[in-house]
Amino acid sequence: MLDWINPNQISFDACVENFLHQRDTPRKFLERCLEVIDKKEPKVKAFVYLNLPAARRAADQSTKRYRAGKPLSVVDGCPIAIKDIISTQDMPTQMNNPVFKGWQSGQDAACVAALRQGGAVMLGKSVTTEFAIGYSGPTTNPFDASRTPGGSSSGSAAAVGSGMVPVALGTQTQASTLRPASYCGAVGYKSSWGQFHMGGIHPLSATADHLGIIGATLGDVWRVASQISLGIGSPGQPFLREAGAKLPAARKPKKLVRLYTHGWGEIDPHTEEAFESAVEVLAKRGVKIVSRHSHVGIARLEERLMQSVAQSLDIVAYELRWPYQDYIAQHGKLIGERLRGLVKKAQQMTPKDYEALLQTRETLRKLWAEVLGDADGCLSLAASGPAPRGLEYTGSRSFLVYASWLGLPAFSLPVMQSQGLPLGLQLIGQPGVDASLAAVAHWVMQ
Amino acid sequence: MLDWINPNQISFDACVENFLHQRDTPRKFLERCLEVIDKKEPKVKAFVYLNLPAARRAADQSTKRYRAGKPLSVVDGCPIAIKDIISTQDMPTQMNNPVFKGWQSGQDAACVAALRQGGAVMLGKSVTTEFAIGYSGPTTNPFDASRTPGGSSSGSAAAVGSGMVPVALGTQTQASTLRPASYCGAVGYKSSWGQFHMGGIHPLSATADHLGIIGATLGDVWRVASQISLGIGSPGQPFLREAGAKLPAARKPKKLVRLYTHGWGEIDPHTEEAFESAVEVLAKRGVKIVSRHSHVGIARLEERLMQSVAQSLDIVAYELRWPYQDYIAQHGKLIGERLRGLVKKAQQMTPKDYEALLQTRETLRKLWAEVLGDADGCLSLAASGPAPRGLEYTGSRSFLVYASWLGLPAFSLPVMQSQGLPLGLQLIGQPGVDASLAAVAHWVMQ
Repeated sequence: MLDWINPNQISFDACVENFLHQRDTPRKFLERCLEVIDKKEPKVKAFVYLNLPAARRAADQSTKRYRAGKPLSVVDGCPIAIKDIISTQDMPTQMNNPVFKGWQSGQDAACVAALRQGGAVMLGKSVTTEFAIGYSGPTTNPFDASRTPGGSSSGSAAAVGSGMVPVALGTQTQASTLRPASYCGAVGYKSSWGQFHMGGIHPLSATADHLGIIGATLGDVWRVASQISLGIGSPGQPFLREAGAKLPAARKPKKLVRLYTHGWGEIDPHTEEAFESAVEVLAKRGVKIVSRHSHVGIARLEERLMQSVAQSLDIVAYELRWPYQDYIAQHGKLIGERLRGLVKKAQQMTPKDYEALLQTRETLRKLWAEVLGDADGCLSLAASGPAPRGLEYTGSRSFLVYASWLGLPAFSLPVMQSQGLPLGLQLIGQPGVDASLAAVAHWVMQ
Repeated sequence: MLDWINPNQISFDACVENFLHQRDTPRKFLERCLEVIDKKEPKVKAFVYLNLPAARRAADQSTKRYRAGKPLSVVDGCPIAIKDIISTQDMPTQMNNPVFKGWQSGQDAACVAALRQGGAVMLGKSVTTEFAIGYSGPTTNPFDASRTPGGSSSGSAAAVGSGMVPVALGTQTQASTLRPASYCGAVGYKSSWGQFHMGGIHPLSATADHLGIIGATLGDVWRVASQISLGIGSPGQPFLREAGAKLPAARKPKKLVRLYTHGWGEIDPHTEEAFESAVEVLAKRGVKIVSRHSHVGIARLEERLMQSVAQSLDIVAYELRWPYQDYIAQHGKLIGERLRGLVKKAQQMTPKDYEALLQTRETLRKLWAEVLGDADGCLSLAASGPAPRGLEYTGSRSFLVYASWLGLPAFSLPVMQSQGLPLGLQLIGQPGVDASLAAVAHWVMQ
């Protein structure tokens, strides 16, 4: 089924018409967000820092602009939560690590600068796992506080999924945006690699780090995406211009590839049933579904992907030697065990090993493009099930790692449930055509 | 002629054998550098910060390693000056701008980390023009204190050219490494775009910023280049592995393209004569020299390049909106006039304009590769003459901008003079084959 709707969702996109016609204001919208935060934050713990006076000032200024009929951009007045590895001029950026406790970068990351210039309301910094890869923060799942919200963009997904904000910035190097979006019942979007300016985002892997956007609806996500893309651009990359500032019109896909990469062995029967019936609904609506069973090329692609998937983490490990090797030298065990392990692993690799990893990735990218051919995207799960119990383990990355590794655009769409908890449908596309994948996602959401 | 030798030069490369055989030590080498600094720095003003205790400690540790026959790398014990837009853990990074006065990043840039891990001696921070593009610092030319050392890597080139250090890190976005190297009688090397990790280097243009290395000899430059490349790598890029840690063996080029791009109208008769006789020497040694006069494709390439060269600065302007747009909003006129002008210009550009600039660059890159074909490189000047008088104007970028814009590897070789002042021969290659260009540069130097 494809009919689950997050009952908490608070959409900015849905209110803009009202702002423009003086039936509502960004300040009132912000206050509605703050009411939810007041009520839910003690349990959800999505934020590590809230900047209420600045947010109210920004919302008031935005209100005046709508009154004058002159909003600055499609995000004018939109309250946004920012993952705490993304630099902000007016708030600390603490990486969920004691070395950065109270650290002030003094400047906005490029994505934040673009949003602020567009009049968005920078509400606060959301909890991340340590440096977006290490130990978890205190955030809980808004649908069941005994469960993880997913990570590493834990606070961003929980804040959106609980209706505290309409949209939040996250990042994804392996699974960090789509997994928590799936667990928290939000839309997650990880762009094609290189689509967004990464300046001012604390790095893990320079060739696998992506900005992620988590929103109540696709419309909320796309407003933020287009303002970042058109407002600041990304070095050397084309803009999301095909679509401009508006969410691309819904487009029914002709053909979707159903992927069986690894992760299928992990899922429970409820999750399987939810996914199967979602696929069935799409097929009934006339979408041609192809898979390894109908196309030998897909089977071969899946095998090649599964054979090499461990390499995706090796690339990350090798690239994160800077700056983490130095952090560890300076701060020892203040840097978490996971990062220390990865750096240790990387130190046993040679430049030749790294080049071989890059080569494999390049080969697989080409194979992906070839096999997908004229399909409108790939269908998969955005997580191996609903959020697991406990707060330390943020969930399996099996379903998410492929799009990150190969730099493909991907959405997690909160249209399913399993055992009463949210479950995302993942849609993966060809690199660079994010806007046309968004059009397909739009159709699926409808 | 190709026989000028900088009388000040102090080569680390030439001493390593002596360290290995206990005839000399890195500590003694450092003290020789410090003597020169004592003597010349009051006039040359190459450094904005010197870290003598740490440098002496590092040199002593290196001395012990050579004594034990176990140097850490090819740069173990090498004193290095670091341009003051490149982050260092133990020294401030001040960008030659008051907003960053005393600013401590707290971490080493990736290139510095690689060198430090290899046992290099981080001696101090060298003067840069403001943010590597704005107003000049106090540095003077080591050959004539009434003249500019060139910029923006002013202190790095002056420190090497005056024999204070054997090698220094710089950067080049338009002309900032090769121009000062030419004016100060040092070897300058600007890699292919993407060849070196740029993490921790304050940005101007994410698609045109390059790390630059300025050294007394090619051997000094290559030690540093290979240690950075092999020690830390560059995200997604192959290593300078062809050559390994040793300077590629000299290789006589079969064919060199003599370029007449713009800048030729600026040169004086002495400079012209120096260049012509250098070309003659190469031709006499059996190198085939081709040019627009013998090859219509070269004429066409040159015309296309000259038609569009203003676009190289437009790309930089558009990309430096982040973070300078915010710096200007926060600090107003504390940010220099040049930067304010560039940001203003960029604000009048649209995403479409920027995409068109990227497109032209891509077209010209392909044309370059096509026209160069099997040539071993291009010959040109590394500056439009010797260093001009005065300290504010750091010289013309006419000869340098092409390699920066298109991301091509380039060397400035200090083998000529004009009016008694140093003048560099520029050698430009095909992207990505830096090591084979170094082999040709090696041959020219011999």
